[in-house]
Amino acid sequence: MKLIRFGEPGQEKPGIIINNKRFDVSAFVNDYNETFFAGDGLSRLNTLIDDGVSLSEVSASTRLGPPMARPSKIVCIGLNYRDHAIEVGAPIPSEPVIFIKSTTALSGPNDNIIIPKGSVKTDWEAELAVVIGRRTGYADEANVPAHIAGYVLHNDVSERAFMFERNGTWDKGKGCDTFAPMGPFIATPDEMPPINNLNVWLKVNGKQMQNGNTRDMIFGVNYLISYISQFMTLLPGDVVSTGTPAGVGFGLRPQVFLQPGDVVELGIDGLGSQRQVVKAYSR
Amino acid sequence: MKLIRFGEPGQEKPGIIINNKRFDVSAFVNDYNETFFAGDGLSRLNTLIDDGVSLSEVSASTRLGPPMARPSKIVCIGLNYRDHAIEVGAPIPSEPVIFIKSTTALSGPNDNIIIPKGSVKTDWEAELAVVIGRRTGYADEANVPAHIAGYVLHNDVSERAFMFERNGTWDKGKGCDTFAPMGPFIATPDEMPPINNLNVWLKVNGKQMQNGNTRDMIFGVNYLISYISQFMTLLPGDVVSTGTPAGVGFGLRPQVFLQPGDVVELGIDGLGSQRQVVKAYSR
Repeated sequence: MKLIRFGEPGQEKPGIIINNKRFDVSAFVNDYNETFFAGDGLSRLNTLIDDGVSLSEVSASTRLGPPMARPSKIVCIGLNYRDHAIEVGAPIPSEPVIFIKSTTALSGPNDNIIIPKGSVKTDWEAELAVVIGRRTGYADEANVPAHIAGYVLHNDVSERAFMFERNGTWDKGKGCDTFAPMGPFIATPDEMPPINNLNVWLKVNGKQMQNGNTRDMIFGVNYLISYISQFMTLLPGDVVSTGTPAGVGFGLRPQVFLQPGDVVELGIDGLGSQRQVVKAYSR
Repeated sequence: MKLIRFGEPGQEKPGIIINNKRFDVSAFVNDYNETFFAGDGLSRLNTLIDDGVSLSEVSASTRLGPPMARPSKIVCIGLNYRDHAIEVGAPIPSEPVIFIKSTTALSGPNDNIIIPKGSVKTDWEAELAVVIGRRTGYADEANVPAHIAGYVLHNDVSERAFMFERNGTWDKGKGCDTFAPMGPFIATPDEMPPINNLNVWLKVNGKQMQNGNTRDMIFGVNYLISYISQFMTLLPGDVVSTGTPAGVGFGLRPQVFLQPGDVVELGIDGLGSQRQVVKAYSR
């Protein structure tokens, strides 16, 4: 299945995509939240569809929101592609780098990216993210696949001056409002080509900036989720974002950062694409 | 008012404390969550109590949970007391250090602290925390008081090896399950003595380890909340924890860390006290 949420910000309803058409499932599902994933909502929804329940179509012009309700947390992995670690001058990690992204950063896949007040170094990061399906604490790597609800495209937007020049952890530059466009949809594992061979690309104003492949991850998806679960419990609906390949603005010489009016497009095999227009913050 | 949540873990109901007695308000309040704080729930609850609505008393032996429902985030400040920065060998921050603590760490004020698997350096940190009452983005410091719903005692339990020896940000050692005992209650601002002169203390097995005062904060409460809100939006019910004074185990020579069977007690003027027994993790 491919799960979407559609409608105005904060008012999104759950839906699904079948044969490139969008359908409303809000009569059967409250939201794609912790309760849904924990309560085996995916199986129940799948059964309804297999049984041919009648669904109303949603216009292709309707705004898409992030395809999951606000999770308890978004856990991100830093420096998980060798070429990206090298381009930003960081050592190759000996074990995964973890940080937490504020969930207030969540936005729809085609919503504007808002450059925060005082920002001069807003940057892009195309990433494969994972949606957790079951409570996950101290998980063995071999058991992780049963804990994955699906996969989703994520632009891990990052303010480099806030991250590196403002004292403290990266969190200041990762959780700004609109810095986590997710979607267009969550794809369940059965919908996906092999996870360890997905092209990951990003363009700015039509120019290719990132062109990586998940085969170049230093730490694979199952390992990462097992690893995080040694330090904190992941809840159903939580999101784990697995890091970005080379080609971010911070890694270019000279460095390039997003400006108002820029257009960012990105995609991953099997997970569709996003398109964001960059705007300056204004009240 | 003083807000509590009582009952078994995950099943807590909202209550209040009046004259040292606990009362159930679950007939009037769903929970102390984002909706409650955003919807002026504090005023409505206060009016009910002033009107003398009949409330049933809750036994003093009932377990207390964290006094807020799971917030969207717990934002913590690091190194906000000069003596603590010195004891851990860190520079005095030129601006606040921010990190995010996983909300799965939340626990009741007197629940056990569970030492995570593989932990050898679990440590304590008594802290003044703030509960946000209104959506807060780009707040001016002068306007912050109107955004504060109340104050709460927090033990910002921390695994020093996970923080400093496992690669990456502090988040690995801050968000382990049971690492955020909160409570016993949220005190609304009118219940509090002056916030800039509160004793903050912590004992391990009866021995005084921390004995600080909020007057020694490097950055004050209103400044911190204004500062954080430049980087991310704080939502009603979110928690901001303002850092710990000197006296943590990591700062001692030789260093001391928590062991199974240890008893941790802590308190802050006006916010009551907590008592945790330390246990090893076991399935």
